[in-house]
Amino acid sequence: MAQVPQHKVVLDESEMPTRWYNILADLPTPPPPPLHPGTGQPIGPADLTPIFPMDLILQEVSTERYIDIPEEVQDVYRLWRPSPLFRAHRLERALGTTARIYYKYEGVSPAGSHKPNTAVPQAYYNAKAGIKKLTTETGAGQWGTSLAFACAQFGLECEVWQVRASYDGKPYRKMMIETFGGTIHPSPSDLTEAGRAVLAEHPDSPGSLGVAISEAVEAAAGDPNANYALGSVLNHVLLHQTIIGEEALLQLAKIDESVDLIVGCTGGGSNFGGLTFPFIRETLAAGGAGPVIRAVEPASCPTLTQGVYAYDFGDVAGLTPMMKMHTLGHDFIPDPIHAGGLRYHGMSPLISHLVEEGLMEAVAKGQQDCFAAGVLFARSEGIIPAPEATHALAATVDAANAATEAGESPVILTALSGHGHVDMAAYDAYLTGSLTDHTWEDSELQESVAQALSRLPQVLV
Amino acid sequence: MAQVPQHKVVLDESEMPTRWYNILADLPTPPPPPLHPGTGQPIGPADLTPIFPMDLILQEVSTERYIDIPEEVQDVYRLWRPSPLFRAHRLERALGTTARIYYKYEGVSPAGSHKPNTAVPQAYYNAKAGIKKLTTETGAGQWGTSLAFACAQFGLECEVWQVRASYDGKPYRKMMIETFGGTIHPSPSDLTEAGRAVLAEHPDSPGSLGVAISEAVEAAAGDPNANYALGSVLNHVLLHQTIIGEEALLQLAKIDESVDLIVGCTGGGSNFGGLTFPFIRETLAAGGAGPVIRAVEPASCPTLTQGVYAYDFGDVAGLTPMMKMHTLGHDFIPDPIHAGGLRYHGMSPLISHLVEEGLMEAVAKGQQDCFAAGVLFARSEGIIPAPEATHALAATVDAANAATEAGESPVILTALSGHGHVDMAAYDAYLTGSLTDHTWEDSELQESVAQALSRLPQVLV
Repeated sequence: MAQVPQHKVVLDESEMPTRWYNILADLPTPPPPPLHPGTGQPIGPADLTPIFPMDLILQEVSTERYIDIPEEVQDVYRLWRPSPLFRAHRLERALGTTARIYYKYEGVSPAGSHKPNTAVPQAYYNAKAGIKKLTTETGAGQWGTSLAFACAQFGLECEVWQVRASYDGKPYRKMMIETFGGTIHPSPSDLTEAGRAVLAEHPDSPGSLGVAISEAVEAAAGDPNANYALGSVLNHVLLHQTIIGEEALLQLAKIDESVDLIVGCTGGGSNFGGLTFPFIRETLAAGGAGPVIRAVEPASCPTLTQGVYAYDFGDVAGLTPMMKMHTLGHDFIPDPIHAGGLRYHGMSPLISHLVEEGLMEAVAKGQQDCFAAGVLFARSEGIIPAPEATHALAATVDAANAATEAGESPVILTALSGHGHVDMAAYDAYLTGSLTDHTWEDSELQESVAQALSRLPQVLV
Repeated sequence: MAQVPQHKVVLDESEMPTRWYNILADLPTPPPPPLHPGTGQPIGPADLTPIFPMDLILQEVSTERYIDIPEEVQDVYRLWRPSPLFRAHRLERALGTTARIYYKYEGVSPAGSHKPNTAVPQAYYNAKAGIKKLTTETGAGQWGTSLAFACAQFGLECEVWQVRASYDGKPYRKMMIETFGGTIHPSPSDLTEAGRAVLAEHPDSPGSLGVAISEAVEAAAGDPNANYALGSVLNHVLLHQTIIGEEALLQLAKIDESVDLIVGCTGGGSNFGGLTFPFIRETLAAGGAGPVIRAVEPASCPTLTQGVYAYDFGDVAGLTPMMKMHTLGHDFIPDPIHAGGLRYHGMSPLISHLVEEGLMEAVAKGQQDCFAAGVLFARSEGIIPAPEATHALAATVDAANAATEAGESPVILTALSGHGHVDMAAYDAYLTGSLTDHTWEDSELQESVAQALSRLPQVLV
């Protein structure tokens, strides 16, 4: 090898951004407001006080362009941030692609994903407001782990309802939440009205994020010392995640690289929004010249590509405000696929609005295609990606192959939202051929992954 | 908070050391040579060629002070190296200690531990020698995962015998090994003479590293296209791990800090040797002035503190050379404790020699004490440590408390060998009170951890 290539761009803690970016300040048109579930009228801050502290409510509706990150939050962020930006040299070599592939890796956090970026400020603002306990739901378990960790930092109790399909399939997530000091229940549970209603009709329900949200909101609303915390979808959550994109901009500037395409998975949209919003700010400031922004969702829960753009509830029981978003209907319960973090019937209203405005596009991928890309990535780059993140990788492989065929050398930036250490049963299912959607949806992807795997020994040495 | 403190020292890839350090060049007296298991005479390079490539055999016996890291190995190292050095501010605050605590974290690697530091060069040198397959044993599963990853980088097959107790208790390790393309068997297995002999006597044997080594060595010795790879104990393995200590020296120099005490866990001794050998070089060069070097081993497998210093086999069946080391006897099968990587009857001959020379000391800790320190660390620093690494943390808490009591402010450097994401069943056992050694061996440690946990909310905000 003539010269050992640079694999990653790291930032010193002193370079960590100290402000979150609020895209609401820059949108050409404002997104439609959330509506009160009872009156159908736009909600005001007072409607949210039963479950959120005022600092977060103000962030939810703020139109300030930048919001300072409190020093107490920076102190916790610095346990893992800034996160690394990688150039995927070894994946590129395996694919034999002319594209340059980068990935921003959030798996270095305590929970192994991007989720602590918002769990920490949410716990902080709640503790500051005198709240003693946070309730929440979790799908894949990433968010519950993150909030349990964050609550430990600020002396809060943490109570988690985990979607039954994930609770049964990922016992290690429960143990991680308990190691961080949290308590956890499978959802639907018999601890809430919402849970009991689902169980009465479907005693074997695998659960869904919508049901688990109803349970956690109900538990918080009934306890004056407790609030609720949501891990995605809402404006303030996406705001907190923008530190990902701000870091990526700094890292790309260090190596004088500009991006042509950004791909990331979307469940509720927070990792995707967090990475892409600062890039969209630059695009808007440049009069529209900027990267293509591509959301990747699971074929079994295709909110952006198959859903309708309409007002809907965020949960099954209809306890949340109605939000205008791409939705499959608030009672939609997707197949128990392994990417639990992407099993949400709706989408962040901000992401939905940006798709409608033409600032983002969306594609859907099947599980089999995604895990194929995930295994190729593990064997070439060494990181076993979370099932959610494999969706971004499948779309990355597609884009890289298209570039190679066209003889072009675009720069692709991939959102690698987390690692899959606690999701290994999903890989086992893939490797043993027992995934629920075990047919290949995309035969070109299948062929290119098989070729790349056979090429690995030759190109990596 | 007056100022957000710096939590970690990161190095750029361009600062990654490009040479390994060979402590054999600097020892006051040479360690006793390994002996041939048949003749009892010192072995020569030719005795090792059935299972090792010549490049590694030469490294095993080299007395050159520095050995260049091949660029192909550097290329893979850069997927995760240099690894971060952390200041444990939040743990210090929880303990209320006057000590300054640093930890060198190897959990950022593809396998989640320090093991890939030697797996990668071992796979590289074997591939360069034309070998097609590597066999190995694995205890906790870290080494098997690491070798499977490394083999994928250089086009080698990888066949792993995993100690039965770990194979049953850690199914995710098997899935990780398979995701990286390796194959895996529980040990004892009926695939080898060595395995069948153990099964004949103990059909329900939980296995041990000694048995699994016999099986893997036997499989390699009988196949001209296969070699064997060992994850610890041997000189060349510890050599490869010295990149840890070389980086730590650079990182401490950046913040102008010098160390008074280094603690790390010891199973076969490779993470511990890797971190400490470069520091011992500095101590020897300074005429003896340097940090105290303290090995921490499990109370249930107390090789250094309770074993004898004598010639013994590295495996159960007596296939390996005899090495002079601290040993509990090559047929010793320790309790199936959760720190599978520390369940080895012997010790690296280099580490043993350094203990005999007075350059290192050793203590033993029980599981309960270790997991208590591990949970405190997870809740304060965010990283869930591997069960092996919790041993170093228990000794760190001890040392920090002693310093506080004495009103001193020593600098403690802790070897955090890996994360515990795939070892969560161990934490579950601790949290539910079902560890095999469920009594506290060290009531002072128990009290200080309980106090620190209760102090967390106040000191972390």
